[in-house]
Amino acid sequence: MNLYTLMKNRRSIRHFSDKKFPRKTIELVLNAGLLAPSGADKKPYVYIIIDDPVLKEKIKDRCEEIDKRLFANSEGWFKKWMLEKQISLEKNFLVDAPYLVVVAGETNKPYWLESTWLSIAYIVLAAENEKLATLTYTPGEMDFLHDLIEIPFNFEPVVIIPIGYPSKRASKINKNNKKKIFFNRYDSD
Amino acid sequence: MNLYTLMKNRRSIRHFSDKKFPRKTIELVLNAGLLAPSGADKKPYVYIIIDDPVLKEKIKDRCEEIDKRLFANSEGWFKKWMLEKQISLEKNFLVDAPYLVVVAGETNKPYWLESTWLSIAYIVLAAENEKLATLTYTPGEMDFLHDLIEIPFNFEPVVIIPIGYPSKRASKINKNNKKKIFFNRYDSD
Repeated sequence: MNLYTLMKNRRSIRHFSDKKFPRKTIELVLNAGLLAPSGADKKPYVYIIIDDPVLKEKIKDRCEEIDKRLFANSEGWFKKWMLEKQISLEKNFLVDAPYLVVVAGETNKPYWLESTWLSIAYIVLAAENEKLATLTYTPGEMDFLHDLIEIPFNFEPVVIIPIGYPSKRASKINKNNKKKIFFNRYDSD
Repeated sequence: MNLYTLMKNRRSIRHFSDKKFPRKTIELVLNAGLLAPSGADKKPYVYIIIDDPVLKEKIKDRCEEIDKRLFANSEGWFKKWMLEKQISLEKNFLVDAPYLVVVAGETNKPYWLESTWLSIAYIVLAAENEKLATLTYTPGEMDFLHDLIEIPFNFEPVVIIPIGYPSKRASKINKNNKKKIFFNRYDSD
């Protein structure tokens, strides 16, 4: 396995099969998340693995409701991007994927949000290494998870990551032609 | 190369030798950063590679000044952590490492901060893959970089990453004994 191949092969997947995989694989993937650097070594986050079908259904219902409202109020470029990418407002991936991982950051720790997203990058790469697909799904609002899965209020849920096998090919990679790397100073040429 | 070995071997390094390496290696590492997932595929960041010794010296001076002020006002646990880790307020790594990479996020893009930190995780892993050491260094304030390296004000500098060879062994890994992984609900048992 080559690291760069792994990074290139990873895609955001929005269509999952219901093919199961062992719980120990998801634990392996999440233990990789804990190896990421974090502010003052605090690892300011927790991972909650969800495989209860009733919970998954409830999460799907709430997320669809939230995202439909968000979409109705969103800017034109975002609506166009959703259409181009054929991204549906039906969030079937939240019930189809065998596991959802809710990542919640501990908001009173230094650089909690930054550290949490470093850890999320490790998780998506570790999943790819296990030939599993992921999506870093950020519904417009996640406060309902405090009640639903009993997350204390000093933690803030920041992402829901479905993990499983894809049922549909991913869309083409974004080639990103814009200049991103500069030497010694930013320079808009 | 095994991904998990790479993740386990990575350490935050604060002592760099001045041993040089080719510019094309740092470009390889930064191109890996561009493969990370980002909000609506926007890749809302730029990387500025700094190898100019005069600029590096200026960055070191400003960061030391800022961090000394920050340290004087910081909480007890942070002071203790700095002492335990033997972290100096002298930031020699900012001149010793052959390259510094300033990562700046584009603040008007969706999930710009989250996306930027996903990309930073890819960079530190790619550097480790090239047997290079890194530090995700976040001085208390980075506004001075707008002037110094001409970063436009719609970008916010979020980290300075020295990249090079270590001159000193890293400190022991934080074993992190706290429970971080839960099933179906957060549960403080």
